[in-house]
Amino acid sequence: MNGTAKLAAEAIARCRKLATFSEDAMGTRRMFLSPPMRDCHRELSRWVEPLGASVRVDAAGNWRALYPAMASDAPRLLLGSHLDTVPNAGALDGILGVVLAVSMLEALQGRRLPFAVEVVGFSEEEGVRFGTPFIGSRALTGRLDEELLYRRDAQGISVRRAIEDFGLNPAEIPQAALNNDVLGYVEFHIEQGPVLEKIGQPLAAVEAIAGQSRLEFVFAGRANHAGTTPMHLRHDAIAGAAEWICAVERHAQQVPGLVATVGKIGATPGAINVIAGEVRATLDVRHSSDEVRERTLDDLIGEADEIARRRGLGVSRTILLRQQAVAMDAFLVNEIEQAIRQTGWDAHRMVSGAGHDAMILAERVRAAMIFLRSPGGISHDPAESVEMEDVARAIECGGHLLDRLASSPEFQNI
Amino acid sequence: MNGTAKLAAEAIARCRKLATFSEDAMGTRRMFLSPPMRDCHRELSRWVEPLGASVRVDAAGNWRALYPAMASDAPRLLLGSHLDTVPNAGALDGILGVVLAVSMLEALQGRRLPFAVEVVGFSEEEGVRFGTPFIGSRALTGRLDEELLYRRDAQGISVRRAIEDFGLNPAEIPQAALNNDVLGYVEFHIEQGPVLEKIGQPLAAVEAIAGQSRLEFVFAGRANHAGTTPMHLRHDAIAGAAEWICAVERHAQQVPGLVATVGKIGATPGAINVIAGEVRATLDVRHSSDEVRERTLDDLIGEADEIARRRGLGVSRTILLRQQAVAMDAFLVNEIEQAIRQTGWDAHRMVSGAGHDAMILAERVRAAMIFLRSPGGISHDPAESVEMEDVARAIECGGHLLDRLASSPEFQNI
Repeated sequence: MNGTAKLAAEAIARCRKLATFSEDAMGTRRMFLSPPMRDCHRELSRWVEPLGASVRVDAAGNWRALYPAMASDAPRLLLGSHLDTVPNAGALDGILGVVLAVSMLEALQGRRLPFAVEVVGFSEEEGVRFGTPFIGSRALTGRLDEELLYRRDAQGISVRRAIEDFGLNPAEIPQAALNNDVLGYVEFHIEQGPVLEKIGQPLAAVEAIAGQSRLEFVFAGRANHAGTTPMHLRHDAIAGAAEWICAVERHAQQVPGLVATVGKIGATPGAINVIAGEVRATLDVRHSSDEVRERTLDDLIGEADEIARRRGLGVSRTILLRQQAVAMDAFLVNEIEQAIRQTGWDAHRMVSGAGHDAMILAERVRAAMIFLRSPGGISHDPAESVEMEDVARAIECGGHLLDRLASSPEFQNI
Repeated sequence: MNGTAKLAAEAIARCRKLATFSEDAMGTRRMFLSPPMRDCHRELSRWVEPLGASVRVDAAGNWRALYPAMASDAPRLLLGSHLDTVPNAGALDGILGVVLAVSMLEALQGRRLPFAVEVVGFSEEEGVRFGTPFIGSRALTGRLDEELLYRRDAQGISVRRAIEDFGLNPAEIPQAALNNDVLGYVEFHIEQGPVLEKIGQPLAAVEAIAGQSRLEFVFAGRANHAGTTPMHLRHDAIAGAAEWICAVERHAQQVPGLVATVGKIGATPGAINVIAGEVRATLDVRHSSDEVRERTLDDLIGEADEIARRRGLGVSRTILLRQQAVAMDAFLVNEIEQAIRQTGWDAHRMVSGAGHDAMILAERVRAAMIFLRSPGGISHDPAESVEMEDVARAIECGGHLLDRLASSPEFQNI
């Protein structure tokens, strides 16, 4: 086993070790500032301190390890991902990005770079505990507003209180924000989709994070007896919603790069022998172009209106989320492509359909991501996995990337 | 106000009075053998006893009032409907049929017929308390099996115990069954559908009660990330179910008299940002021809299989109910048509899409029904209503029918 293969095996073992730090006896669940998060931090520190990194946990609960540069006043490059998980999680989503950053430091074998490397294990990305995602990365951009501190979890504990209970001081959150010495942020993450597997590539450079719109549609018909109401006298909310769901799918299939999903549907009264009087259905639309996404939304709303009009239904909708697409930094994306090619593979470019910490960091610093192939496209599930060889390629790619950036005056010129 | 109009106004007032005997402080809910059912019986008895009828409550909780014939050994005609209600009920479903039977006795003004008239207020038709409908009418056909007595309600009370708590003796249920002296059963009921309103007729003769099939379909796809799974790599259970629901509607629209309804739908995991891995959807199919209904079912199952195959989904189904169509008695239907015509209106013939006590009685005796126009087709709802004029026409029609049957040797020849 060569050095990289050994590091890859160790990285996977570490991910599996961290997965055991869980709030649940069976399965992995590790929410923002939960007790197992402390164990997770301790374990990570055990790995990086021997490498010469100094560790702190900032007031937003982010684990941060600084591997020093050649010179003490050098700027820094951030590497990392998030440490929190969804319930019944796999061992890789988020964690692998942090563990790979540690592997990259190990691969340096004590070598110092012209910039420091700060590995960040974000405290919160999934939004499970407080219903708000990206708490960790928002603290680094200085965008964690006061109001959020009063939000409460299912047990009635506020963010402020959770921070204090973890032994941190909410008043110090501003100190978690990045200074002006940050060159950029690079995040490894499993793809969480089937694209790389389908095309037979281990790694991809993420060029943008898709914008998202999330809406709830309500189709209002007339509840009526399923036996006594002839077909032509019905105002069936389920039939109307079904026609629209077919239109949503057809529309998305026709626009390259577009995904549109109805993932949740419920009917009222919801009885086997009653024509539905109301249907609530959600819509999730994503595309790397905000213009395409907004146009799609207009089309799908128009489609719903037209179907409802023809069927004598009412239809209304509520926008639950409208998030602009975020481009990754062109320079970094290009360097990542070159680094992937140096591993002997083609450099696929792709858009991330999911949101990531890199999307938040991109507001403040150059940011980019590298995706690792996800077998079966599975994530947020214990069956989430990764090929050992792909992890080795990621570590190799990460090493090439650090070397490229270390020798790039353009990159280091803040 | 003429006599019939006065009886009609009184009938509606009586329905509204009975609606106040409820298990709920607000709204009407009167389940099988519930305390307000006793008040309902007492009130009904107060109305019929002055007419010379003798009242009993049989061991299945059916209220039965016998209005004697000219001769003591004469056979009997049954009139009636059910006294139990769904939760949050209107004032007419079931009750109106019992109240109209009382009005018909009053309209006789003491006149005796060659047959006795037994008014039956069935104790249970809706199936709310024990999940089994038609308990009252099944006792009259002698089909109330021992096993049912051990069924329990939401409070854990068995049918047997409920009968005892009501002051009745379960051992006497066999005596509730009809003897061989019954000429037939006629039931007035609100249509619970929009057909009579649409065609502008107050009354209809019901020629058959549609057969019903109820199924649950399960579409199994692959739950996946809504942002990272391209459209062409999806196995979306909601999209597949939606395509099938559209096919169900299209199919039913093409077959005269067929109704097919998907009234309940739910997706798993049911998250806005996750492609559904599983959808459960119900199907309710009704037609007066069992052959058409069975053929429809085959077609819709075939449709589901084809859609699932094309999309890489699994599909399975469970039959929850399969009930044959029941023809109403041809002689009685014809007499009812004539009686409706005698009121000066066209006699519309129709199929009941809903099940009724008449469907159960038809196993043992000649049975038929008369529908009253339902404004808005509304039932099982406090907004359930009826036109006062239609009630007057029903009373008039009922009087004509009694006269016709009284002068029909064919009818009285058991």
